[in-house]
Amino acid sequence: TAHGARKMEDYGRFLALLASTLLVGFVSVILSLVWVFHYREGLSWDGSPGEFNWHPVLIITGFVFIQGIAIIVYRLPWTWKCSKLLMKFIHAGLNTIAMILAIVSMVAVFEFHNAKNIPNMYSLHSWIGLTAVIFYSLQLLLGFAVFLLPFAPVHLRVVLMPIHVYSGLTIFATVIATALMGITEKLIFSLKNPAYSASPPEATLVNCLGLLLVIFGSLILWMASRPHWKRPPAENAKILRPIAATPEGTEAESTMTNSSNADKSDLRMNTEAARKQNTKFDEAGQRSTM
Amino acid sequence: TAHGARKMEDYGRFLALLASTLLVGFVSVILSLVWVFHYREGLSWDGSPGEFNWHPVLIITGFVFIQGIAIIVYRLPWTWKCSKLLMKFIHAGLNTIAMILAIVSMVAVFEFHNAKNIPNMYSLHSWIGLTAVIFYSLQLLLGFAVFLLPFAPVHLRVVLMPIHVYSGLTIFATVIATALMGITEKLIFSLKNPAYSASPPEATLVNCLGLLLVIFGSLILWMASRPHWKRPPAENAKILRPIAATPEGTEAESTMTNSSNADKSDLRMNTEAARKQNTKFDEAGQRSTM
Repeated sequence: TAHGARKMEDYGRFLALLASTLLVGFVSVILSLVWVFHYREGLSWDGSPGEFNWHPVLIITGFVFIQGIAIIVYRLPWTWKCSKLLMKFIHAGLNTIAMILAIVSMVAVFEFHNAKNIPNMYSLHSWIGLTAVIFYSLQLLLGFAVFLLPFAPVHLRVVLMPIHVYSGLTIFATVIATALMGITEKLIFSLKNPAYSASPPEATLVNCLGLLLVIFGSLILWMASRPHWKRPPAENAKILRPIAATPEGTEAESTMTNSSNADKSDLRMNTEAARKQNTKFDEAGQRSTM
Repeated sequence: TAHGARKMEDYGRFLALLASTLLVGFVSVILSLVWVFHYREGLSWDGSPGEFNWHPVLIITGFVFIQGIAIIVYRLPWTWKCSKLLMKFIHAGLNTIAMILAIVSMVAVFEFHNAKNIPNMYSLHSWIGLTAVIFYSLQLLLGFAVFLLPFAPVHLRVVLMPIHVYSGLTIFATVIATALMGITEKLIFSLKNPAYSASPPEATLVNCLGLLLVIFGSLILWMASRPHWKRPPAENAKILRPIAATPEGTEAESTMTNSSNADKSDLRMNTEAARKQNTKFDEAGQRSTM
């Protein structure tokens, strides 16, 4: 019962953190809209500054907020009774939406630049931003091929999973860093009279937006890197099911035969190589604090 | 023997990665010097742009390069025969040097701004940068009090270590993001004819410097987050010692009585609370991939 109480307390802590994260992300999206509608030229798609303004709005909505949610979607305790395949589809789907929004937001900048005869791809922001979008797309493609399609052997999944997690989190951090550079550029270029250095209200508002992005990123990285908040392995899920499952839940699982196989194979480690890898991981895991 | 061969291969991989990281960090420091000496006004301490130039040089040398090395210092396999206390002193010492250089580099900017009547603390770069320095200093102070001084109870160390690791890595990533914002600001402000958007050689050089900082940060985060590259726990160290130890090594360890106690207490978990925590960690660790 003391164990149960600690579990509930931990669950409450997770929910509080999740609520804070969603709030910070939501306020960031709102602030980006206040920025472009109250202080800038609003949104349009005609080569004017209103087209440029899609860039911050779509990056913050898609490439920061939606990507952040995609990262922690496996951590949501009420999804642990759902099949792993369903969660993989949600993870991949959210990341696909984020990728599309990031690409559209880049198109907006290129069209705006071309209409105004501003050179493209000269800034550090553009170099790192384009690199991040390319790596993000490769990550999505590789993740789809290895973890969603049922063809990859288990030992490949075991070897690639830590790399997938690492590169996902590193790309996410890089995206936030790139957003901060973009905010810096835009405030310097667009605030002229008064200048950025005179701290007009727009500067203060957008600086706060930048701070919120850092806080959002930090919260996502905390939730993603706590080992005890991970989705339990399939074996545990089976043991837990009788308590929580509904007939529909069981049916849903059993109709997705492929999924179920792919799902279980992730964790059963039934090849010799995978078993060895697994032992190595357990060993390493015992000393893991991050 | 197959196990031994795999260990050697893994050791070789670590060394190759470490060499690449040191090279990238070293080239970054060189590029910052080329920037300020070849393209800018060099270094001075007289309120002129030469004083400002200490800012990028000291940030890249201290707050990025030295901080990065401080983070991975426990990962160096040839230090595993050294006492944990010695390594803690090196970790804390490098971080102290990085903090001092970061503070000096901020003083340089404030003095330059004041001499030129440029407002302080108006930019997102300054907001996040100052926040990072404050959190870094608190992290150092708290780390010293809890993990270096011998007073903190074991269960407190066990509870705070994952937080220490997380905030250390998050502050490090934030510092690199802040450096990228600083580069963006400085290139926009100082490149006038030709402008940043005309991509003069200075812009290309400093953009490359920014890319190298991202690569350096990614390599440090990779090395820091591989569980199998962690310093083995004290028990293992004792078992391994007879193979590698020299009499001096043993003497050095045995003369530092306090250290030795503090060191062992980290891992022996001899209180009830710590044992419970430990079980929780092991459980969690088995599912850890990052």
